[in-house]
Amino acid sequence: MSREPRTAIATVCLSGALEDKLPAAAAAGFDGVEIFEPDLVASPMPPGEVRLRCADLGLSIDLYQPFRDLDSTDPERFAANLRRAEHKFGVMEALGTDTVLVCSSVAPDAVADVDLLAEQLHALAERAAARGLRIAYEALAWGRHVNTYDRSWEAVRRADHPALGLCLDSFHILSRGSDPAAIADIPGDKLFFLQLADAPHLSMDVLQWSRHHRLFPGQGAFDLPGFLAPVLAAGYTGPLSLEVFNDVFRQADPARAAVDAHRSLLALAEATAARGEGADPVAEAAPELHGHAFVELSADESLAPVLAALGFARTGLHRTKPVERWEQGAARILVNRSGGPVAVAALAVESADPPAAARRATRLSAPVLPRERGPAEADLAAVTAPDGTALFFCRTGARAVEGADWTGDFVPTGETAADDGAGIGVTGIDHVGLAQPFDHFDEATLFYRTVLGLEPDATGEFAAPFGLVRSRAVVDAQRRVRLALTVSLLRRGEWAPGVSEPQYVALAVDDVLAAARAARAAGAPLLAIPDNYYADLDARLALSKDRLAAYRDLGVLHEETAGGAYLQVCTEVLGGRVFLALVQRVGDHDGYGWTDAPVRMAAHRRRRLARERVRA
Amino acid sequence: MSREPRTAIATVCLSGALEDKLPAAAAAGFDGVEIFEPDLVASPMPPGEVRLRCADLGLSIDLYQPFRDLDSTDPERFAANLRRAEHKFGVMEALGTDTVLVCSSVAPDAVADVDLLAEQLHALAERAAARGLRIAYEALAWGRHVNTYDRSWEAVRRADHPALGLCLDSFHILSRGSDPAAIADIPGDKLFFLQLADAPHLSMDVLQWSRHHRLFPGQGAFDLPGFLAPVLAAGYTGPLSLEVFNDVFRQADPARAAVDAHRSLLALAEATAARGEGADPVAEAAPELHGHAFVELSADESLAPVLAALGFARTGLHRTKPVERWEQGAARILVNRSGGPVAVAALAVESADPPAAARRATRLSAPVLPRERGPAEADLAAVTAPDGTALFFCRTGARAVEGADWTGDFVPTGETAADDGAGIGVTGIDHVGLAQPFDHFDEATLFYRTVLGLEPDATGEFAAPFGLVRSRAVVDAQRRVRLALTVSLLRRGEWAPGVSEPQYVALAVDDVLAAARAARAAGAPLLAIPDNYYADLDARLALSKDRLAAYRDLGVLHEETAGGAYLQVCTEVLGGRVFLALVQRVGDHDGYGWTDAPVRMAAHRRRRLARERVRA
Repeated sequence: MSREPRTAIATVCLSGALEDKLPAAAAAGFDGVEIFEPDLVASPMPPGEVRLRCADLGLSIDLYQPFRDLDSTDPERFAANLRRAEHKFGVMEALGTDTVLVCSSVAPDAVADVDLLAEQLHALAERAAARGLRIAYEALAWGRHVNTYDRSWEAVRRADHPALGLCLDSFHILSRGSDPAAIADIPGDKLFFLQLADAPHLSMDVLQWSRHHRLFPGQGAFDLPGFLAPVLAAGYTGPLSLEVFNDVFRQADPARAAVDAHRSLLALAEATAARGEGADPVAEAAPELHGHAFVELSADESLAPVLAALGFARTGLHRTKPVERWEQGAARILVNRSGGPVAVAALAVESADPPAAARRATRLSAPVLPRERGPAEADLAAVTAPDGTALFFCRTGARAVEGADWTGDFVPTGETAADDGAGIGVTGIDHVGLAQPFDHFDEATLFYRTVLGLEPDATGEFAAPFGLVRSRAVVDAQRRVRLALTVSLLRRGEWAPGVSEPQYVALAVDDVLAAARAARAAGAPLLAIPDNYYADLDARLALSKDRLAAYRDLGVLHEETAGGAYLQVCTEVLGGRVFLALVQRVGDHDGYGWTDAPVRMAAHRRRRLARERVRA
Repeated sequence: MSREPRTAIATVCLSGALEDKLPAAAAAGFDGVEIFEPDLVASPMPPGEVRLRCADLGLSIDLYQPFRDLDSTDPERFAANLRRAEHKFGVMEALGTDTVLVCSSVAPDAVADVDLLAEQLHALAERAAARGLRIAYEALAWGRHVNTYDRSWEAVRRADHPALGLCLDSFHILSRGSDPAAIADIPGDKLFFLQLADAPHLSMDVLQWSRHHRLFPGQGAFDLPGFLAPVLAAGYTGPLSLEVFNDVFRQADPARAAVDAHRSLLALAEATAARGEGADPVAEAAPELHGHAFVELSADESLAPVLAALGFARTGLHRTKPVERWEQGAARILVNRSGGPVAVAALAVESADPPAAARRATRLSAPVLPRERGPAEADLAAVTAPDGTALFFCRTGARAVEGADWTGDFVPTGETAADDGAGIGVTGIDHVGLAQPFDHFDEATLFYRTVLGLEPDATGEFAAPFGLVRSRAVVDAQRRVRLALTVSLLRRGEWAPGVSEPQYVALAVDDVLAAARAARAAGAPLLAIPDNYYADLDARLALSKDRLAAYRDLGVLHEETAGGAYLQVCTEVLGGRVFLALVQRVGDHDGYGWTDAPVRMAAHRRRRLARERVRA
């Protein structure tokens, strides 16, 4: 019988966390694995434990990857990159793997001159060799200067260092149509690693774009008011008609999709009228928003102690319903103890003109929410958002606007929070995160954009432990109301059914370390973040030892951008699908911490599995 | 209060059948609809009834669309296109709509000369005007010669006919980055129609292709043996390692995905060895296949009468199990009356060497099927396919090969089918259609390819009533074993849960009309196909009146290609998820009738709803 080839698989090929992937690879008969850095960073296993786990499973660790953007025309940047590499060499020693994948750079400062590139690769190889390690250099198909295997070979050949060789990836080579025949002429001992992938021939030409990815006006990136204006100026008198080929709409409830579609045309007509073409708008303009009025959470008994530990005070009890008002700074959370798992039941925004906001929402076909109400209660205008969340228009404290103040519905308990020092520094609600049903993500974006007059903000996509998640934020012009919407791009699989991305309320603080310390001292269930995350943070950002120790101690996630940083500490998921986060924005950071979302999601999942194990 | 713009929506924007779409559009507040031709063709409502239905709902029919590839440099082709147009004008009159969308041609014979194009558009407009209709000409962004609005306007301007104007589509214009400002200079009475769509900025660059759509070797289009051979020739001694970024694998069971992945490397090593590089293959070669041995259906009592009506005879009863053998020609169907909804429980193929085939399957990690067996029963080697179907390796009648003959398990009933004229002309099994679970479509392709030694055949994608369906066929070199695999591209939505694409057994016949007549006379529940389908077939193919009448009468679906035709008559879905089809291949037709699949699926769904209504 013949010999089986030695086989390996990159952990990125498989779903789940490292704890799922390693036994799956071993059971399938693989001899080794490539450890993909984000899998390690999100794992609670220190590298040495990963090494032992693999050894137990009979798996070698054949590669650690990737190390990106090594070379640089900026000597200072190159020095920082070497420092980062030394950190990763330490990780490799602990893993017990001797080869690291270095991809060709995609950065603007990537080195074009092949001799300088060879020199920098030589310097890296020299450091690797000193620790018994070696560098496999790979041409990414979209590398800035090095994007074919012959260019990567040219650099490696010139660098001429025994600890430096090539990694060949079939995708990068065949996707560009390169002829692989000349590979046979490269010395075999310079081929350090081989990565294999197949792919269908794909091109997102305009035909595919058109047939699968069209959206209703206001859901995409086109300037449609700028398109409609000249058409109306020409004298077109026919209907505004939608022709939208979209894979998601093709399988969603047509009654819902039609409402969404019709709303998009009313909003388009409004936006075009604002440019002076077409009839007057059909709805009143969206009144200005002044912030989040409250978030209502349906809850069981587990929530109240957590709110208390986070410095909230129970300031009021509803006159007729099992609803409590909790407050700290400008953050107000209503706890609806009607039971059921913890979930966001309602959002309320502060509106300059709640009745006008409600009329606009109705005009835009937002489903009006029937509401039972006792004789002394506020007649809050409310509609239902696409994910079923109730949306209230309030003007807290303005008793002159009929029905817009809601505080009178609550009997004060006499408790106060921040005023008497019991708070932990929460100043208000930064934003609310809402995972959307797969069929209604684009609908939700348009709903908030049109009904509340919000504008699309950041968008993103990240690889969560159970698959890709797409994010889109909507904000008002003053950034006082922010919503972060997410959706699983392929719906949940049979392997990982149910909720993958929980809802959350991000609470604004000025000092996340102080707030988290106080919360933990009071018993708040803060989410532990793996050490590997901080080792990587250290390699990337060179934070002070003290700061890093505090982060590690409290579970701070730190997203750094050119403009500033987004620091957050999350609680565990609280008895349902909601967690709370303490969020500090530093400098001009205007994002939502999505870079850290996969790490946070893996940590939440780990906690859930641990709880389930305890129960079982 | 201001005036609401007149709004319309193309039926293609919404999921479901026309019966779902029209009320959804009306309820959402639309004033009109564009009737998308495939929706009408799949509908049982004659055009006049669609007109009444729309009128009842308060909807105008603003556009019928699309008419494709009108102009031609070939005068004969152009004459045929005018004939086709006259047919569609008749449909429009019945619908009560006066405007048809004509897209710029994408065909190789499209007219480049703008004066000839104008002349042909003028000729069409003249015919339309004679019937009180008008033509809205639209530049597709990917039109062969006319792909910008200024080119379409140039042709319309030169044609200079009052029944000819423009249709402007925001997608086609903005996706190409055209400046819409000059639209304001076109006379308003020449703007016949306006279609609106938004879209995200998208490009399937190599980065996106790489991060989302990689596949395991053998699942895509790359020549990986041709890539691996020079790498091995160079002297590479490291592992074959997989690096596959794939959105589906990212959310699928990692244990399953790892087995699939490992199988792909064994098969790659085998294929590379066949080119003279690398070690010998690790598994025995796939033995030759001689055809389908049988298909086993789990069934309730509803199936037997249908098989009888289709001319099958119950030729044997299993010695120990509630299994019946039904036969006609070389087609054998086992009916397993253990109960449960009707479904494909097992496939059996005729193998030149069943034990070797089983050893190969085991070596490629196919799960071996444990099988209970009485003392006198055949020890058929069997494995489980990715969708759970059992797969048997047989050599029917070859008692010399131990365990490979299965016919001895059955006690003959004495009944025969085709021999005594009771059959309807079924000669064998043409192919089996198997809808795959979303997470395992690529795995299934690779499974059949490697385990059975089949090769990928046709691939396709079609818009079914509940969303896109992807198809891929696998066949042996002699085309004696064919499997058609399908998958819903976005998994089922909440609006349309459960099975959308049933399994089927395609039965080969030489004369589908005679076979269908005989089956119907015997009471087989043949699927009715809407008249609209035949009206369209007539417009396209100019079939004889008799032939068309027979098609209409029996529900024949006719897919025409350059090489021949695929004619099929389907039964209703039989008490579960299976239907049977009578299939006649004419000429060199080598496909699977996928062009007609949306019509067939809409008809099946209509029958199901009708049955549910009867029950309720």
